[in-house]
Amino acid sequence: MSFFPPSLENLIDKFASLPGIGKKSAQRLAFYVLSLPEEEAVSFASAIIDAKSSVHCCPVCQNLTDGEICSVCGDERRDKSMICVVSEPRDVLSFERGREYKGVYHVLHGVMSPMNHIGPDDLKISELISRISEGGVHEVIMATNPDTEGDTTAMYISRLIKPFEVRVTRLAYGIPVGSNLEFADEATLTRALEGRREM
Amino acid sequence: MSFFPPSLENLIDKFASLPGIGKKSAQRLAFYVLSLPEEEAVSFASAIIDAKSSVHCCPVCQNLTDGEICSVCGDERRDKSMICVVSEPRDVLSFERGREYKGVYHVLHGVMSPMNHIGPDDLKISELISRISEGGVHEVIMATNPDTEGDTTAMYISRLIKPFEVRVTRLAYGIPVGSNLEFADEATLTRALEGRREM
Repeated sequence: MSFFPPSLENLIDKFASLPGIGKKSAQRLAFYVLSLPEEEAVSFASAIIDAKSSVHCCPVCQNLTDGEICSVCGDERRDKSMICVVSEPRDVLSFERGREYKGVYHVLHGVMSPMNHIGPDDLKISELISRISEGGVHEVIMATNPDTEGDTTAMYISRLIKPFEVRVTRLAYGIPVGSNLEFADEATLTRALEGRREM
Repeated sequence: MSFFPPSLENLIDKFASLPGIGKKSAQRLAFYVLSLPEEEAVSFASAIIDAKSSVHCCPVCQNLTDGEICSVCGDERRDKSMICVVSEPRDVLSFERGREYKGVYHVLHGVMSPMNHIGPDDLKISELISRISEGGVHEVIMATNPDTEGDTTAMYISRLIKPFEVRVTRLAYGIPVGSNLEFADEATLTRALEGRREM
Protein backbone atom coordinates (compact mmCIF):
# COMPACT_ATOMS: atom_id res chain seq x y z
CA MET A 1 0.00 0.00 0.00
CA SER A 2 1.54 3.28 -1.10
CA PHE A 3 0.13 6.17 0.87
CA PHE A 4 3.06 8.53 1.21
CA PRO A 5 4.47 10.57 -1.66
CA PRO A 6 6.58 8.35 -3.99
CA SER A 7 9.88 9.98 -3.07
CA LEU A 8 9.14 9.39 0.62
CA GLU A 9 8.07 5.79 -0.05
CA ASN A 10 11.35 5.36 -1.91
CA LEU A 11 13.37 6.69 1.03
CA ILE A 12 11.44 4.41 3.41
CA ASP A 13 12.21 1.44 1.14
CA LYS A 14 15.89 2.36 1.11
CA PHE A 15 16.03 2.42 4.90
CA ALA A 16 14.01 -0.81 5.10
CA SER A 17 16.58 -2.50 2.85
CA LEU A 18 19.25 -1.99 5.53
CA PRO A 19 19.97 -4.97 7.77
CA GLY A 20 17.95 -5.04 10.99
CA ILE A 21 15.67 -2.17 9.94
CA GLY A 22 11.99 -3.10 9.60
CA LYS A 23 9.24 -1.19 7.82
CA LYS A 24 8.21 0.75 10.95
CA SER A 25 11.75 1.75 11.87
CA ALA A 26 12.37 2.71 8.25
CA GLN A 27 9.35 5.05 8.37
CA ARG A 28 10.64 6.60 11.58
CA LEU A 29 14.11 7.13 10.10
CA ALA A 30 12.70 8.59 6.87
CA PHE A 31 10.49 11.01 8.80
CA TYR A 32 13.48 11.99 10.88
CA VAL A 33 15.59 12.70 7.80
CA LEU A 34 12.75 14.84 6.38
CA SER A 35 12.65 16.79 9.62
CA LEU A 36 16.37 17.62 9.36
CA PRO A 37 17.50 21.02 8.06
CA GLU A 38 18.24 20.94 4.31
CA GLU A 39 22.03 21.05 4.77
CA GLU A 40 22.08 18.17 7.25
CA ALA A 41 20.05 15.94 4.92
CA VAL A 42 22.43 16.83 2.08
CA SER A 43 25.45 16.09 4.27
CA PHE A 44 23.95 12.70 5.17
CA ALA A 45 23.61 11.92 1.47
CA SER A 46 27.14 13.06 0.71
CA ALA A 47 28.51 11.03 3.63
CA ILE A 48 27.23 7.94 1.83
CA ILE A 49 28.75 8.98 -1.50
CA ASP A 50 32.05 10.03 0.10
CA ALA A 51 32.48 6.85 2.12
CA LYS A 52 31.51 4.69 -0.84
CA SER A 53 33.93 6.43 -3.20
CA SER A 54 36.93 6.83 -0.90
CA VAL A 55 36.84 3.67 1.21
CA HIS A 56 38.16 0.47 -0.35
CA CYS A 57 39.91 -2.70 0.78
CA CYS A 58 43.58 -2.57 1.73
CA PRO A 59 45.30 -4.59 -1.05
CA VAL A 60 47.38 -6.41 1.58
CA CYS A 61 44.99 -7.31 4.42
CA GLN A 62 41.58 -6.46 2.85
CA ASN A 63 40.65 -4.25 5.79
CA LEU A 64 38.78 -1.05 4.90
CA THR A 65 40.94 1.98 4.27
CA ASP A 66 40.96 5.25 2.34
CA GLY A 67 44.71 5.20 1.83
CA GLU A 68 46.92 3.16 -0.47
CA ILE A 69 47.31 0.49 2.22
CA CYS A 70 45.74 0.48 5.69
CA SER A 71 47.30 2.00 8.79
CA VAL A 72 48.17 -1.40 10.29
CA CYS A 73 49.86 -2.77 7.17
CA GLY A 74 51.67 0.56 6.74
CA ASP A 75 52.98 0.55 10.31
CA GLU A 76 56.69 -0.41 10.41
CA ARG A 77 56.41 -1.55 14.05
CA ARG A 78 53.82 -4.27 13.35
CA ASP A 79 55.03 -7.85 13.10
CA LYS A 80 54.31 -8.87 9.50
CA SER A 81 55.12 -12.52 10.27
CA MET A 82 51.94 -12.97 12.31
CA ILE A 83 48.54 -12.74 10.58
CA CYS A 84 45.30 -12.66 12.54
CA VAL A 85 42.44 -13.80 10.28
CA VAL A 86 39.07 -12.20 11.10
CA SER A 87 35.76 -12.27 9.30
CA GLU A 88 34.79 -8.58 9.46
CA PRO A 89 36.53 -5.16 9.57
CA ARG A 90 34.85 -4.49 12.92
CA ASP A 91 36.70 -7.47 14.39
CA VAL A 92 39.98 -5.69 13.66
CA LEU A 93 38.64 -2.81 15.75
CA SER A 94 38.00 -5.22 18.65
CA PHE A 95 41.61 -6.39 18.62
CA GLU A 96 43.03 -2.90 18.17
CA ARG A 97 41.04 -1.73 21.16
CA GLY A 98 42.99 -4.23 23.25
CA ARG A 99 46.33 -2.72 22.14
CA GLU A 100 47.95 -6.11 22.85
CA TYR A 101 48.21 -7.60 19.38
CA LYS A 102 51.29 -6.50 17.46
CA GLY A 103 50.88 -8.57 14.31
CA VAL A 104 48.86 -7.78 11.18
CA TYR A 105 45.40 -8.85 10.03
CA HIS A 106 43.57 -10.46 7.18
CA VAL A 107 39.88 -9.65 6.76
CA LEU A 108 37.82 -12.36 5.05
CA HIS A 109 34.70 -10.20 4.64
CA GLY A 110 32.36 -12.95 5.77
CA VAL A 111 32.37 -16.61 6.71
CA MET A 112 31.51 -19.70 4.73
CA SER A 113 27.79 -20.30 4.98
CA PRO A 114 26.19 -22.94 2.75
CA MET A 115 22.74 -21.83 3.97
CA ASN A 116 23.34 -18.36 2.54
CA HIS A 117 25.23 -19.65 -0.50
CA ILE A 118 28.50 -18.12 0.66
CA GLY A 119 31.40 -20.34 -0.39
CA PRO A 120 35.18 -19.93 -0.11
CA ASP A 121 35.29 -18.02 -3.40
CA ASP A 122 33.06 -15.29 -1.95
CA LEU A 123 35.63 -14.59 0.77
CA LYS A 124 39.13 -13.10 0.62
CA ILE A 125 40.71 -16.52 1.10
CA SER A 126 42.79 -16.66 -2.10
CA GLU A 127 44.29 -13.28 -1.12
CA LEU A 128 45.32 -14.80 2.22
CA ILE A 129 46.87 -17.83 0.58
CA SER A 130 48.88 -15.70 -1.86
CA ARG A 131 50.09 -13.54 1.07
CA ILE A 132 51.30 -16.66 2.84
CA SER A 133 52.84 -18.14 -0.31
CA GLU A 134 55.03 -15.04 -0.64
CA GLY A 135 56.83 -16.23 2.50
CA GLY A 136 57.84 -14.50 5.74
CA VAL A 137 54.71 -15.58 7.62
CA HIS A 138 55.34 -17.69 10.74
CA GLU A 139 51.92 -17.86 12.35
CA VAL A 140 48.32 -17.51 11.26
CA ILE A 141 45.81 -17.00 14.07
CA MET A 142 42.29 -18.01 13.07
CA ALA A 143 40.05 -15.49 14.83
CA THR A 144 36.70 -16.10 13.17
CA ASN A 145 33.74 -16.21 15.55
CA PRO A 146 33.42 -19.30 17.77
CA ASP A 147 30.27 -20.58 16.04
CA THR A 148 29.58 -23.25 13.44
CA GLU A 149 30.25 -21.05 10.43
CA GLY A 150 33.31 -19.43 11.99
CA ASP A 151 34.70 -22.82 13.00
CA THR A 152 34.06 -24.29 9.56
CA THR A 153 35.75 -21.37 7.85
CA ALA A 154 38.73 -21.58 10.20
CA MET A 155 39.02 -25.33 9.59
CA TYR A 156 38.79 -24.91 5.81
CA ILE A 157 41.47 -22.23 5.72
CA SER A 158 43.80 -24.05 8.09
CA ARG A 159 43.77 -27.03 5.70
CA LEU A 160 44.69 -24.76 2.80
CA ILE A 161 47.56 -23.29 4.80
CA LYS A 162 48.98 -26.62 5.95
CA PRO A 163 51.24 -27.18 2.86
CA PHE A 164 53.09 -23.93 3.64
CA GLU A 165 54.34 -25.27 6.99
CA VAL A 166 53.14 -22.19 8.86
CA ARG A 167 51.94 -22.41 12.46
CA VAL A 168 48.13 -22.17 12.48
CA THR A 169 46.43 -21.38 15.80
CA ARG A 170 42.85 -20.72 16.91
CA LEU A 171 41.72 -18.22 19.54
CA ALA A 172 41.14 -19.91 22.91
CA TYR A 173 37.58 -20.83 23.86
CA GLY A 174 36.62 -20.35 27.50
CA ILE A 175 34.81 -18.42 30.17
CA PRO A 176 34.75 -14.66 29.41
CA VAL A 177 36.72 -12.59 31.91
CA GLY A 178 34.44 -11.12 34.57
CA SER A 179 31.55 -13.43 33.78
CA ASN A 180 29.79 -15.83 36.11
CA LEU A 181 30.18 -19.62 35.89
CA GLU A 182 26.49 -19.89 36.71
CA PHE A 183 25.57 -18.41 33.34
CA ALA A 184 28.16 -20.18 31.21
CA ASP A 185 26.63 -22.58 28.69
CA GLU A 186 27.71 -26.21 28.65
CA ALA A 187 29.60 -26.02 25.37
CA THR A 188 31.70 -23.13 26.65
CA LEU A 189 32.33 -24.89 29.97
CA THR A 190 33.42 -28.06 28.17
CA ARG A 191 35.80 -26.03 25.97
CA ALA A 192 37.09 -24.15 29.04
CA LEU A 193 37.84 -27.47 30.74
CA GLU A 194 39.57 -28.85 27.66
CA GLY A 195 41.69 -25.73 27.38
CA ARG A 196 42.67 -25.58 31.05
CA ARG A 197 46.26 -24.54 31.81
CA GLU A 198 48.74 -24.90 34.69
CA MET A 199 48.58 -22.11 37.20
CA MET B 1 38.66 6.49 19.21
CA SER B 2 38.90 6.92 15.47
CA PHE B 3 40.15 3.74 13.86
CA PHE B 4 38.28 3.67 10.57
CA PRO B 5 39.00 5.97 7.63
CA PRO B 6 37.55 9.47 8.28
CA SER B 7 34.87 9.20 5.57
CA LEU B 8 33.70 5.92 7.08
CA GLU B 9 33.72 7.39 10.60
CA ASN B 10 31.66 10.26 9.23
CA LEU B 11 29.10 7.88 7.70
CA ILE B 12 28.93 5.92 10.98
CA ASP B 13 28.33 9.19 12.86
CA LYS B 14 25.54 10.11 10.44
CA PHE B 15 23.77 6.81 11.03
CA ALA B 16 24.34 7.07 14.78
CA SER B 17 22.62 10.47 14.74
CA LEU B 18 19.37 8.81 13.61
CA PRO B 19 16.81 8.08 16.35
CA GLY B 20 17.09 4.61 17.88
CA ILE B 21 20.40 3.81 16.15
CA GLY B 22 23.32 3.26 18.51
CA LYS B 23 27.02 3.24 17.69
CA LYS B 24 27.16 -0.51 17.01
CA SER B 25 24.11 -0.50 14.73
CA ALA B 26 25.48 2.57 12.96
CA GLN B 27 28.70 0.66 12.24
CA ARG B 28 26.73 -2.27 10.90
CA LEU B 29 24.65 -0.01 8.64
CA ALA B 30 27.70 1.88 7.37
CA PHE B 31 29.50 -1.39 6.55
CA TYR B 32 26.38 -2.57 4.77
CA VAL B 33 26.20 0.59 2.66
CA LEU B 34 29.88 0.17 1.77
CA SER B 35 29.18 -3.38 0.68
CA LEU B 36 26.46 -2.22 -1.73
CA PRO B 37 27.19 -1.88 -5.45
CA GLU B 38 28.18 1.67 -6.38
CA GLU B 39 24.84 2.49 -8.06
CA GLU B 40 22.79 1.32 -5.08
CA ALA B 41 24.78 3.46 -2.65
CA VAL B 42 24.31 6.43 -4.98
CA SER B 43 20.58 5.75 -5.25
CA PHE B 44 20.36 5.63 -1.43
CA ALA B 45 22.02 9.03 -1.26
CA SER B 46 19.75 10.47 -3.95
CA ALA B 47 16.67 9.04 -2.23
CA ILE B 48 17.52 11.26 0.74
CA ILE B 49 18.02 14.33 -1.44
CA ASP B 50 14.90 13.63 -3.54
CA ALA B 51 12.62 13.08 -0.56
CA LYS B 52 14.00 16.11 1.24
CA SER B 53 13.58 18.37 -1.78
CA SER B 54 10.19 17.16 -3.04
CA VAL B 55 8.30 16.35 0.15
CA HIS B 56 6.75 19.22 2.10
CA CYS B 57 3.72 19.85 4.28
CA CYS B 58 0.29 20.12 2.67
CA PRO B 59 -0.67 23.79 3.16
CA VAL B 60 -4.16 22.71 4.26
CA CYS B 61 -3.68 19.78 6.64
CA GLN B 62 0.13 19.83 7.16
CA ASN B 63 0.42 16.17 6.17
CA LEU B 64 3.49 15.29 4.08
CA THR B 65 2.99 15.49 0.33
CA ASP B 66 4.92 16.09 -2.86
CA GLY B 67 1.98 17.71 -4.62
CA GLU B 68 0.43 21.16 -4.23
CA ILE B 69 -1.98 19.77 -1.63
CA CYS B 70 -2.13 16.23 -0.27
CA SER B 71 -4.23 13.44 -1.77
CA VAL B 72 -6.77 13.53 1.07
CA CYS B 73 -7.33 17.29 0.94
CA GLY B 74 -7.50 17.09 -2.86
CA ASP B 75 -10.11 14.32 -2.82
CA GLU B 76 -13.61 15.71 -3.65
CA ARG B 77 -15.30 12.79 -1.88
CA ARG B 78 -13.78 13.54 1.52
CA ASP B 79 -15.94 15.33 4.07
CA LYS B 80 -14.17 18.66 4.66
CA SER B 81 -16.44 19.48 7.60
CA MET B 82 -14.82 16.85 9.80
CA ILE B 83 -11.17 17.24 10.84
CA CYS B 84 -9.27 14.49 12.60
CA VAL B 85 -6.31 15.99 14.51
CA VAL B 86 -3.30 13.68 14.77
CA SER B 87 0.22 14.27 16.02
CA GLU B 88 2.26 12.57 13.28
CA PRO B 89 1.95 11.85 9.52
CA ARG B 90 2.16 8.12 10.28
CA ASP B 91 -1.06 8.41 12.33
CA VAL B 92 -2.86 9.46 9.14
CA LEU B 93 -1.65 6.21 7.61
CA SER B 94 -3.16 4.26 10.52
CA PHE B 95 -6.58 5.80 9.90
CA GLU B 96 -6.37 5.45 6.12
CA ARG B 97 -5.55 1.77 6.53
CA GLY B 98 -8.95 1.36 8.20
CA ARG B 99 -10.77 2.87 5.16
CA GLU B 100 -13.56 3.92 7.52
CA TYR B 101 -12.82 7.56 8.08
CA LYS B 102 -14.20 9.85 5.37
CA GLY B 103 -13.25 13.25 6.78
CA VAL B 104 -9.96 15.12 6.47
CA TYR B 105 -6.95 15.44 8.79
CA HIS B 106 -4.78 17.94 10.51
CA VAL B 107 -1.24 16.90 11.42
CA LEU B 108 0.27 18.71 14.43
CA HIS B 109 3.81 17.36 13.89
CA GLY B 110 4.32 16.59 17.55
CA VAL B 111 2.65 17.00 20.90
CA MET B 112 3.12 19.56 23.63
CA SER B 113 5.89 18.37 25.92
CA PRO B 114 7.24 20.76 28.55
CA MET B 115 10.00 18.24 29.38
CA ASN B 116 11.32 18.50 25.81
CA HIS B 117 10.59 22.23 25.54
CA ILE B 118 7.89 21.69 22.93
CA GLY B 119 5.14 24.28 23.35
CA PRO B 120 2.01 25.07 21.32
CA ASP B 121 3.99 27.36 19.01
CA ASP B 122 6.19 24.46 17.92
CA LEU B 123 3.14 22.58 16.60
CA LYS B 124 0.80 23.30 13.68
CA ILE B 125 -1.92 24.53 16.03
CA SER B 126 -2.34 28.06 14.64
CA GLU B 127 -2.84 26.52 11.19
CA LEU B 128 -5.65 24.38 12.63
CA ILE B 129 -7.32 27.34 14.28
CA SER B 130 -7.20 29.39 11.08
CA ARG B 131 -8.71 26.44 9.14
CA ILE B 132 -11.57 26.31 11.63
CA SER B 133 -12.02 30.09 11.68
CA GLU B 134 -12.62 30.00 7.91
CA GLY B 135 -15.87 28.16 8.71
CA GLY B 136 -17.48 25.01 7.29
CA VAL B 137 -16.06 22.74 10.00
CA HIS B 138 -18.62 20.88 12.10
CA GLU B 139 -16.53 18.46 14.09
CA VAL B 140 -12.93 18.20 15.24
CA ILE B 141 -11.85 14.74 16.42
CA MET B 142 -8.85 14.90 18.74
CA ALA B 143 -6.85 11.79 17.86
CA THR B 144 -3.56 12.43 19.63
CA ASN B 145 -2.14 9.44 21.50
CA PRO B 146 -3.88 8.42 24.74
CA ASP B 147 -0.96 9.41 26.98
CA THR B 148 -0.23 12.43 29.18
CA GLU B 149 1.27 14.56 26.42
CA GLY B 150 -1.38 13.56 23.88
CA ASP B 151 -4.17 14.26 26.38
CA THR B 152 -2.69 17.62 27.36
CA THR B 153 -2.34 18.66 23.73
CA ALA B 154 -5.92 17.57 22.96
CA MET B 155 -7.20 19.47 25.99
CA TYR B 156 -5.26 22.61 25.07
CA ILE B 157 -6.51 22.62 21.48
CA SER B 158 -10.12 21.85 22.44
CA ARG B 159 -10.11 24.97 24.63
CA LEU B 160 -8.86 27.07 21.72
CA ILE B 161 -11.60 25.68 19.46
CA LYS B 162 -14.42 26.23 21.93
CA PRO B 163 -15.20 29.85 20.85
CA PHE B 164 -15.94 28.61 17.31
CA GLU B 165 -18.89 26.48 18.50
CA VAL B 166 -17.59 23.41 16.71
CA ARG B 167 -18.18 19.93 18.07
CA VAL B 168 -14.92 18.64 19.60
CA THR B 169 -14.64 14.90 20.28
CA ARG B 170 -11.89 12.60 21.53
CA LEU B 171 -11.20 9.05 20.34
CA ALA B 172 -12.69 6.45 22.68
CA TYR B 173 -10.47 4.80 25.26
CA GLY B 174 -11.01 1.13 25.93
CA ILE B 175 -9.94 -2.47 25.55
CA PRO B 176 -8.28 -3.07 22.15
CA VAL B 177 -10.26 -5.39 19.90
CA GLY B 178 -8.96 -8.95 20.10
CA SER B 179 -7.00 -8.37 23.28
CA ASN B 180 -7.31 -10.16 26.59
CA LEU B 181 -8.85 -8.57 29.69
CA GLU B 182 -6.21 -10.33 31.74
CA PHE B 183 -3.49 -8.14 30.27
CA ALA B 184 -5.39 -4.84 30.25
CA ASP B 185 -3.88 -2.25 32.59
CA GLU B 186 -6.02 -0.66 35.29
CA ALA B 187 -6.17 2.77 33.68
CA THR B 188 -7.48 1.30 30.44
CA LEU B 189 -10.01 -0.85 32.28
CA THR B 190 -11.26 2.15 34.25
CA ARG B 191 -11.64 4.15 31.02
CA ALA B 192 -13.36 1.19 29.34
CA LEU B 193 -15.85 1.03 32.19
CA GLU B 194 -16.47 4.79 32.08
CA GLY B 195 -17.04 4.61 28.33
CA ARG B 196 -19.37 1.60 28.42
CA ARG B 197 -22.34 1.69 26.01
CA GLU B 198 -25.74 0.02 25.71
CA MET B 199 -25.69 -3.21 23.77
